[in-house]
Amino acid sequence: MPTQAHMKAALQAYIDGFNADDPEAIMALFAANAVIEDPVGSPLKSRAEFEAFIRQGVRFGARLKLAAPIRGSHGNHAAMVFTVTFVQDGVRYTTNSTDVMTFDEAGKIVRMDGLWGPGDVTVG
Amino acid sequence: MPTQAHMKAALQAYIDGFNADDPEAIMALFAANAVIEDPVGSPLKSRAEFEAFIRQGVRFGARLKLAAPIRGSHGNHAAMVFTVTFVQDGVRYTTNSTDVMTFDEAGKIVRMDGLWGPGDVTVG
Repeated sequence: MPTQAHMKAALQAYIDGFNADDPEAIMALFAANAVIEDPVGSPLKSRAEFEAFIRQGVRFGARLKLAAPIRGSHGNHAAMVFTVTFVQDGVRYTTNSTDVMTFDEAGKIVRMDGLWGPGDVTVG
Repeated sequence: MPTQAHMKAALQAYIDGFNADDPEAIMALFAANAVIEDPVGSPLKSRAEFEAFIRQGVRFGARLKLAAPIRGSHGNHAAMVFTVTFVQDGVRYTTNSTDVMTFDEAGKIVRMDGLWGPGDVTVG
């Protein structure tokens, strides 16, 4: 099982990857068989589908800011609460999200659950 | 599916229940068949086991404080990030946690996942 420190560093690297416009750094955190449910309640994305989503976010200038210290667990999960802002077609969107990441034995993210609802998005 | 507003109000009521020393108000939020994994990575608790855990928390004077606005989802989940403090045997403990709640069709919490690790607890 990955250490708490490893998992927390990976979540921080996810934040840092967006803020450095570096999709490769973000994708390097994920296992080949990773699945992503973001937002939770939408269809699962494969790693390839998620990569397109990430690259779009980087094109839109997504910036992520932690709202509280990253939490670990007593297992292979860690969670972070953050706000993401991006600009699409000249309109600024701000979303409050909580992402829960599940890690495999190799220390890669094998599942991501992004918890945010329609009411957690501010436009303008 | 419960509304976003209903789920967020239930999470706020969970916080408020502790802060009012009211275990009945807390337990009223949970379905009869609820299961609780708190911390994530520990064995599942049944509703009855969880009630004992809640009542102990209330005896220890647990106080919960939100660290960021409660998040919903596009499904039947909502999440909150908070800090809980309590005093056991004269020692003060502060834990950073993220709780993810899953709701049933009746709007009751049917599953709770509490994400916090050993490194998220401060003693003293």
